[in-house]
Amino acid sequence: MTTVQSPIWAHEGTRVQERVMRYLAADDVILDRELFPHDIRATRAHVNALARIGAFTQDEADRVGAQLETLLARFADGAFVLDERYEDGHSAIEAHLTEHLGDLGKRIHLGRSRNDQALVAIRLCMRESLEAARRSALEIAEAALEVAREHEMTPMPGYTHLQRAVPSTVGLWMASYAEAFLDDAELIDMTARWIDRCPLGTAAGYGVNLPLDREGAARELGFPRLQRNPMAAQASRGKHETQALACLWQPMQTLRRLGWDLTLFATSEFGFVEMPPEMTTGSSIMPNKRNPDLAELLRGAAAVVAGAMTEIQQIVSLPSGYHRDLQLTKGPLLRAMRCARESLALAPALIRGLRLNTGKMRAAIDAPMHSTDAAIETALSGVSFRDAYRAMADRGAPGGARTPESSAAARVSPGACADLGLAALRARLEELRESSDASVQRSVD
Amino acid sequence: MTTVQSPIWAHEGTRVQERVMRYLAADDVILDRELFPHDIRATRAHVNALARIGAFTQDEADRVGAQLETLLARFADGAFVLDERYEDGHSAIEAHLTEHLGDLGKRIHLGRSRNDQALVAIRLCMRESLEAARRSALEIAEAALEVAREHEMTPMPGYTHLQRAVPSTVGLWMASYAEAFLDDAELIDMTARWIDRCPLGTAAGYGVNLPLDREGAARELGFPRLQRNPMAAQASRGKHETQALACLWQPMQTLRRLGWDLTLFATSEFGFVEMPPEMTTGSSIMPNKRNPDLAELLRGAAAVVAGAMTEIQQIVSLPSGYHRDLQLTKGPLLRAMRCARESLALAPALIRGLRLNTGKMRAAIDAPMHSTDAAIETALSGVSFRDAYRAMADRGAPGGARTPESSAAARVSPGACADLGLAALRARLEELRESSDASVQRSVD
Amino acid sequence: MTTVQSPIWAHEGTRVQERVMRYLAADDVILDRELFPHDIRATRAHVNALARIGAFTQDEADRVGAQLETLLARFADGAFVLDERYEDGHSAIEAHLTEHLGDLGKRIHLGRSRNDQALVAIRLCMRESLEAARRSALEIAEAALEVAREHEMTPMPGYTHLQRAVPSTVGLWMASYAEAFLDDAELIDMTARWIDRCPLGTAAGYGVNLPLDREGAARELGFPRLQRNPMAAQASRGKHETQALACLWQPMQTLRRLGWDLTLFATSEFGFVEMPPEMTTGSSIMPNKRNPDLAELLRGAAAVVAGAMTEIQQIVSLPSGYHRDLQLTKGPLLRAMRCARESLALAPALIRGLRLNTGKMRAAIDAPMHSTDAAIETALSGVSFRDAYRAMADRGAPGGARTPESSAAARVSPGACADLGLAALRARLEELRESSDASVQRSVD
Amino acid sequence: MTTVQSPIWAHEGTRVQERVMRYLAADDVILDRELFPHDIRATRAHVNALARIGAFTQDEADRVGAQLETLLARFADGAFVLDERYEDGHSAIEAHLTEHLGDLGKRIHLGRSRNDQALVAIRLCMRESLEAARRSALEIAEAALEVAREHEMTPMPGYTHLQRAVPSTVGLWMASYAEAFLDDAELIDMTARWIDRCPLGTAAGYGVNLPLDREGAARELGFPRLQRNPMAAQASRGKHETQALACLWQPMQTLRRLGWDLTLFATSEFGFVEMPPEMTTGSSIMPNKRNPDLAELLRGAAAVVAGAMTEIQQIVSLPSGYHRDLQLTKGPLLRAMRCARESLALAPALIRGLRLNTGKMRAAIDAPMHSTDAAIETALSGVSFRDAYRAMADRGAPGGARTPESSAAARVSPGACADLGLAALRARLEELRESSDASVQRSVD
Repeated sequence: MTTVQSPIWAHEGTRVQERVMRYLAADDVILDRELFPHDIRATRAHVNALARIGAFTQDEADRVGAQLETLLARFADGAFVLDERYEDGHSAIEAHLTEHLGDLGKRIHLGRSRNDQALVAIRLCMRESLEAARRSALEIAEAALEVAREHEMTPMPGYTHLQRAVPSTVGLWMASYAEAFLDDAELIDMTARWIDRCPLGTAAGYGVNLPLDREGAARELGFPRLQRNPMAAQASRGKHETQALACLWQPMQTLRRLGWDLTLFATSEFGFVEMPPEMTTGSSIMPNKRNPDLAELLRGAAAVVAGAMTEIQQIVSLPSGYHRDLQLTKGPLLRAMRCARESLALAPALIRGLRLNTGKMRAAIDAPMHSTDAAIETALSGVSFRDAYRAMADRGAPGGARTPESSAAARVSPGACADLGLAALRARLEELRESSDASVQRSVD
Repeated sequence: MTTVQSPIWAHEGTRVQERVMRYLAADDVILDRELFPHDIRATRAHVNALARIGAFTQDEADRVGAQLETLLARFADGAFVLDERYEDGHSAIEAHLTEHLGDLGKRIHLGRSRNDQALVAIRLCMRESLEAARRSALEIAEAALEVAREHEMTPMPGYTHLQRAVPSTVGLWMASYAEAFLDDAELIDMTARWIDRCPLGTAAGYGVNLPLDREGAARELGFPRLQRNPMAAQASRGKHETQALACLWQPMQTLRRLGWDLTLFATSEFGFVEMPPEMTTGSSIMPNKRNPDLAELLRGAAAVVAGAMTEIQQIVSLPSGYHRDLQLTKGPLLRAMRCARESLALAPALIRGLRLNTGKMRAAIDAPMHSTDAAIETALSGVSFRDAYRAMADRGAPGGARTPESSAAARVSPGACADLGLAALRARLEELRESSDASVQRSVD
Repeated sequence: MTTVQSPIWAHEGTRVQERVMRYLAADDVILDRELFPHDIRATRAHVNALARIGAFTQDEADRVGAQLETLLARFADGAFVLDERYEDGHSAIEAHLTEHLGDLGKRIHLGRSRNDQALVAIRLCMRESLEAARRSALEIAEAALEVAREHEMTPMPGYTHLQRAVPSTVGLWMASYAEAFLDDAELIDMTARWIDRCPLGTAAGYGVNLPLDREGAARELGFPRLQRNPMAAQASRGKHETQALACLWQPMQTLRRLGWDLTLFATSEFGFVEMPPEMTTGSSIMPNKRNPDLAELLRGAAAVVAGAMTEIQQIVSLPSGYHRDLQLTKGPLLRAMRCARESLALAPALIRGLRLNTGKMRAAIDAPMHSTDAAIETALSGVSFRDAYRAMADRGAPGGARTPESSAAARVSPGACADLGLAALRARLEELRESSDASVQRSVD
Repeated sequence: MTTVQSPIWAHEGTRVQERVMRYLAADDVILDRELFPHDIRATRAHVNALARIGAFTQDEADRVGAQLETLLARFADGAFVLDERYEDGHSAIEAHLTEHLGDLGKRIHLGRSRNDQALVAIRLCMRESLEAARRSALEIAEAALEVAREHEMTPMPGYTHLQRAVPSTVGLWMASYAEAFLDDAELIDMTARWIDRCPLGTAAGYGVNLPLDREGAARELGFPRLQRNPMAAQASRGKHETQALACLWQPMQTLRRLGWDLTLFATSEFGFVEMPPEMTTGSSIMPNKRNPDLAELLRGAAAVVAGAMTEIQQIVSLPSGYHRDLQLTKGPLLRAMRCARESLALAPALIRGLRLNTGKMRAAIDAPMHSTDAAIETALSGVSFRDAYRAMADRGAPGGARTPESSAAARVSPGACADLGLAALRARLEELRESSDASVQRSVD
């Protein structure tokens, strides 16, 4: 039998309607499951900081710390379930400590508010999600680089407006994903550094009458900087969330392009790629179908992140200070971060598993696609480019012994088919990976 | 011990990676819990329609019908749990029937696809949610009308730009909510009629080689019209969802205004209203606080609906035909509809429970607020309005024996303080309620 | 030489910084150009209403009316330019009348505010845009119906997940657009009726101390109903805009699907359609290119409407009463309405000009696409559908003399290839067109 | 008389319908006015790079360069007007050069496409806008710091949920804006670095058969890095735009909070601040009004940026390669960047011009607001915090000689009233300003 805890703010004369309580709580406590380990960790840092200013003895802090470890372990193995018995995760921690440590548990909320408690747990959670997304982006870049290297000069049509434009290569196509995901990883890294500031100790947005060791608590949690001003910290609720999602949207957008390319190239009409069969599904009514569901969901997933961003932006049209509306930022944030993490994690295997029909790709490069090359060559021999262009347009297709291979080999502008710069991309990947490892190391220390 | 069902499309040679399956399924089956009763009901209509064209005997259809009733009852009382054992709700129904009826269960997917199965279940669910929202909007209008009637001429300042503008009344304020929610209810009704068309029998978007009795199935499910063209039906996925949310956003926006008014008027500085204490909460750190959390969440909730709308709009940039991306429209739709239903349902009690501090309201009407009345009076005596305006602006405030009450009594333009038209609003409420009741009746028949 | 008018609210002691004024005004007066004829028309209705309650003599009202006609004509032929000399269109009207009629001009603002003046002009403008969009939607439906009729049984592959699914027809494809645009037109009509209520006479949101003949003014402007409550009228700013855009988004979304289909089917790989050459463009560098720019912009244009909707939704998180933020709703509304009108107007010619390569379409229907038909036939002969499905899946493709034509002819479920219901669509088109004509007639009267 | 130029891609047999051309062009060429100087500058860098590989003689490049300077000057002083005579700005440059330099002008498009031409001009424009926004953010921070320093310990109530919560100070309030705008400036800087990569030389997305000196062109334009892969460069269209707007949204969101605070605190009921009178406006009907329009528009402007972001995100659901839809990203980008720049530029003067009513602020701090301080003090004396909290909650308000000043002085947690860290904020401002100056210097070199 479950007993619902009284709200921690309950005192004589407060009684909230049952159905109002349910609406206020909504699935907040369920969402808090993802934040719970971070909340426990930050609670420990808070109590240790209180000990450093003499508000707890070291022994008391250690006993609280040990109980928090127990709670964390019990939560991890399922022995402790965070559910509707509690108003939220914060209350659950205080309730647990009070149950096991008596008065000592009732002392831990000294100098803090659920406002900064939520802020710091969400911050830690964002940091972790950004780090995971960054690592996945690097892995996707690596997978794309591998395919690019294997098919560096494999001919493939280049399209604009979905119309056949100029000869290109699989190498160019795949290197475009490598570069894009490296760019995305770099942005995630920048954004992670921007939000990597500790709000713990700002209480309800106005600080407290205690000389809190905020710097020490921040250090314990791996934050290199403080959010110093308590009102600014409070007002970053929603701002940081939006920016975290904005940077996650970038690799999701790159994935959206990949999803589009793959579903298009996997049509019978294009026939350039086949998805790995273990990543396709069937139809309930049409026995002949194998569908590229994974590529389609990876394509659609960017909308989840974008929708969450809009939702949060709409919520935070508010004056200074905490407002309960801010609770509504938690759902979209956690939902979108999870969607991004899971989507990005699946992409490397999808890329590595692609089967390329190089014959069909080469066959799709028709004669008029050589016109641009020819016009440029003509222009080099003295005719103006605009006149060479018009002459070629009237003619339809250049003659001569042009092949997809010769076109690719002649495309020497930096980054183009004959100068992909795969080694430079690989070097950049390694560099970003090292910086990533260093950052993980730091936050674990 | 749970056994995971094979996908219904599984046959020799199909094997999907475990983690891909998990990603594809996501929480789809959990979302399907809300759709499940609708899906069961539509399955029954489908089988009955098959019986009418001889594809099932009436006895077979009755046996399936009985099993579906059993499943519905077991789902309702918790004996049957829809969870990750199934790929989705549709598969669960087929699995259940096959388990209990053998080959007969394996026959029910004749002439339909999960595409039209999802379409019809979602349509029924939207219809139900819109109806619930409409009824709540009418109840809020009624609550607002009651307060308007009780305080028809109670003075209250009228603001523009949050600055004191002209004298007004509680009656005018509350009647504005009554009218707005009546408008919103009317819109929901229109939109519900627009989407009230049956997609069942369009299969995978191209129909089937069976003379399905689509009209009959539609009638059984209470739809007055068919979505005739199967590709149009398929392409309405996302369109109908967006429009349903667009109409739900309207009462949520009215609620957002109410939330703003209440949180503002409940400040110590304004002091015009107090929330019902059983709808406020406390702080974890500040013993002196009672917070208007409910009003704040009602204010913030519009963003949930708006975010979901954007999310869906972003997903449906697609060519004709079903694409797996469309599955991603389900989550935001269900989430936003639930949020709207729950938020609207709480507003009547909030309005009825408000305590008005009429003394403070009256005291906030200061002398310069009578300037507009005075300028208009001057203008009637021959001076041009623009000159009267300028004279009054230079003067600061009119003299004379103007009171909030005299100003309200003189405000005779239709809809203004002295001519609120409460009876007309009441009559419109009754009319909309009757139409609502008729509609519910129809869909139950 | 241009002289900048003083703001109409200017009086002794008011001076606004030049650059602040510029920021406040922004391009508001330029946007007002689209609203100006509506504003003039509503001003005339207001003055006539004032005459009916004796605040103007009939002669005065007629003189104002004549001057307004002059202004309208001069604006139409370019003799009067609405530009930065005026704070906004409203001020320009008052300035013009005052210049030509002296004191009589300074009297016209009696009993009204720029708030209700803006509301009514925007309302009239929305009504006009919705009507234009509705007519275009009907014309697109007609064009699609014509192609559907011409190619009623022309074979074409049906896709799901962009994979070849089942045989279909051009008739089914085009009828899907006819039905969708009819649905969209119907929704626009409903929404136009919902917003078709007159806010004129609500002044600054609290009415005035004059017995305004609001009903009469509404009648003169063709409104069947009043927005009665002044605060509700004020609070509909943003709400009506959003709903107008929500209904316009629907045909834009149908257009987005069309744009996708056309750009996809116009690839060399599909090769099903060619755009009319006079609707394609070339490349600046690639002489061989003809690009489907029109189809692409029609596809992208839905985002303009969706973005505007989000923008407006974000603005209107506000308490009751006018706030200057609301001015920001004007830009996105006008921009999106214009985009929708222009986009929809071009689609009929695009559809009529399509060249279909029916040979390529037919050739793309391969043998396995007949599997679903075959499985259903097998299921009718006693095997359960699920078993027939699995047998067919293992077999790959059915044998027999199946052709695209025989498949289409057998697809008899209502709405499917053999039962498109073109006559019913045509009848619905005529009905919606008549209702549309009636509505235009009414608003002109 | 104006003559419309033929499209540069026009050749025999191409004719686009007049009204289609108008729709395709829309206001593109008008938007290009903002990009024109950047496009000219990049054209010059392109021609210089062509000279370095021998495709132009140095003399030819110099002549083109001189003509480009002339065009730039004529555009700046209004002698050259970019309007509907041209398809776009790119075409206008080529037309101008061809008119004045004959064949030499027709040669400049060698090795480039309008795709990379647009990319680079937009990139330069974004860089400039971000830099301007960053400088404004720093100026706002400085203004806020000045007020914070002047009123470091001036008492002011601290609110949560808009309810009086704890005593606070003007210093804390204003320092929160200083810190927030410094954070925002830092983010803009990071984002500017992320997008600061040169796409010039990627042509239509596949490079060209010329050994373009892309590094050299990048250096001339002040880019520290290349976008190497041409398809990745092309696919960054929309991605970079979105990220630029995401970072600009941050200071706009901080401004939104400021707008809310000011409009709220400027109500008669709060009465804490008065806007500078030269930044307020009047009403057209109410002689008594002075309205905080500027603060309201600054509040609303965040929605312009957010709406533009959503609009762009919706457009870019596309496969690899250029699509005409991408043209639609230009409008929202330019509109939102301009809105952000202009809004941010006005804020410093608004802040500096505020008049604070410190008497009213102090008076609004009532006795119960001291409860939290008291509960924490009690907790330090041995009672658990939760028990101290409950005791205080039951008691209502602490006794003793607490004043706003004593409370502020005791609030010693880092960042709180007694430890605002203004010097650290000032130091950070200087540091960011120097980095900003260095960056401007670099891009000018």
